[in-house]
Amino acid sequence: METEFSIPMRVYIEDTDAGGIVYYVNYLKFMERARTELLRTMGLPKPAILEEGMLLVVASAKVDYKKSARLDDQLVVGANIKKVARSYIVFQQHVLCDGNCLAEGEIKVACVDQTTMKPCAFPKRLVNAFSAG
Amino acid sequence: METEFSIPMRVYIEDTDAGGIVYYVNYLKFMERARTELLRTMGLPKPAILEEGMLLVVASAKVDYKKSARLDDQLVVGANIKKVARSYIVFQQHVLCDGNCLAEGEIKVACVDQTTMKPCAFPKRLVNAFSAG
Amino acid sequence: METEFSIPMRVYIEDTDAGGIVYYVNYLKFMERARTELLRTMGLPKPAILEEGMLLVVASAKVDYKKSARLDDQLVVGANIKKVARSYIVFQQHVLCDGNCLAEGEIKVACVDQTTMKPCAFPKRLVNAFSAG
Amino acid sequence: METEFSIPMRVYIEDTDAGGIVYYVNYLKFMERARTELLRTMGLPKPAILEEGMLLVVASAKVDYKKSARLDDQLVVGANIKKVARSYIVFQQHVLCDGNCLAEGEIKVACVDQTTMKPCAFPKRLVNAFSAG
Repeated sequence: METEFSIPMRVYIEDTDAGGIVYYVNYLKFMERARTELLRTMGLPKPAILEEGMLLVVASAKVDYKKSARLDDQLVVGANIKKVARSYIVFQQHVLCDGNCLAEGEIKVACVDQTTMKPCAFPKRLVNAFSAG
Repeated sequence: METEFSIPMRVYIEDTDAGGIVYYVNYLKFMERARTELLRTMGLPKPAILEEGMLLVVASAKVDYKKSARLDDQLVVGANIKKVARSYIVFQQHVLCDGNCLAEGEIKVACVDQTTMKPCAFPKRLVNAFSAG
Repeated sequence: METEFSIPMRVYIEDTDAGGIVYYVNYLKFMERARTELLRTMGLPKPAILEEGMLLVVASAKVDYKKSARLDDQLVVGANIKKVARSYIVFQQHVLCDGNCLAEGEIKVACVDQTTMKPCAFPKRLVNAFSAG
Repeated sequence: METEFSIPMRVYIEDTDAGGIVYYVNYLKFMERARTELLRTMGLPKPAILEEGMLLVVASAKVDYKKSARLDDQLVVGANIKKVARSYIVFQQHVLCDGNCLAEGEIKVACVDQTTMKPCAFPKRLVNAFSAG
């Protein structure tokens, strides 16, 4: 399982549920942390709320769950850019533990105007960062 | 937008994020609450952790986000069974506000052995409930 | 255990942790839902973010945990106003299950200017609502 | 503001609310991460669920909120042991940002039997770790 960009992450009790495993919804949080750190390495801090009056919002999320993480597991969460379009970007993501893939996700993030919430083209500095990254 | 089974839900501050909208991850919680209540109406309380030593776990989740909910919105969250197989079930789900569809989801829930975490056939009482429901 | 204002609440899997009980942090969310509904009955919807450019923020929280709630429990969560001052309000709160008190909280909520985040007096309409309530 | 043990922590969008600040409830999660890492340094991994059939549960939490953290802030979260008794331990905790104290907490964690949920003495290995730590 190759992941170009990834960050380590520890599973805390806050992440688990009464089934004794990580609550599946929380993998989406893990994936977003990795996307955020990837964008930070590209010179784009605070990407969820852009200075230009735009928001980056998730337009769709698709996650396949293969194995369950448990309390105290040390995870590796990957985020890679699969496609960049004019107003959205698609990330391919993985959650790994001990070399096993626990979950895979494809997350489409769109740029919208914060007031109208309508899609709009990425600001220039993001386009530049994406093409350099 | 037709939804056969649905429950009302209020958006609280806990559900929102700094973008001023409901944090997209939380729609998955809303959808699970609706699934849980649907199963309860079918005579299946506490469905996440089955007495038979099995868990119902989410095997895949696909969500399309169309519009954003905001603080204090009154939502209607629907859950309908799209397919029942031997060891999994697929739910079709909607989140509505004022008649508009904010999000649609397709959630595949699998039955697994709590010890081995391997897929296993639903216990008889669930099969009966699903076929009656 | 007397509670003047209270709302019912179901425990979902999202609320639990790997200890098999409700994650203690989530009682604070339950208590806030009850405060929000109490304020709504007093004619104050959307109380976290006031139209007057102010926020209601939690200044302190004190919770005593006595017993644990579990998946599927039907809770009753109470919120009562203990004290109203010029720029803050103190709520006394309970989480009950089957007549037993699971947790008690005292939550101090302060009015702050959204820009400076400094304490400021409640707007008139809130003062009126509090004195009528 | 002195903190003997502390860990760094980034604020992600998942931590914020529509007020534009970190949702106050989440400071309790931050504090627990720091307690968990402190106990790990003392040779006690996975402290929430003990192998001896006991749980460490929060018996009371008291948090004072002074300033608000915001998206992307880099926090330092401290955890120090204030008191160790036979069946409980009290932690003093801080959340700092740029040298300012945002929140202070006092968290009492009790050892309980996982079956009866009654308080019980810490297992020997914890007592040893606490006295060495």
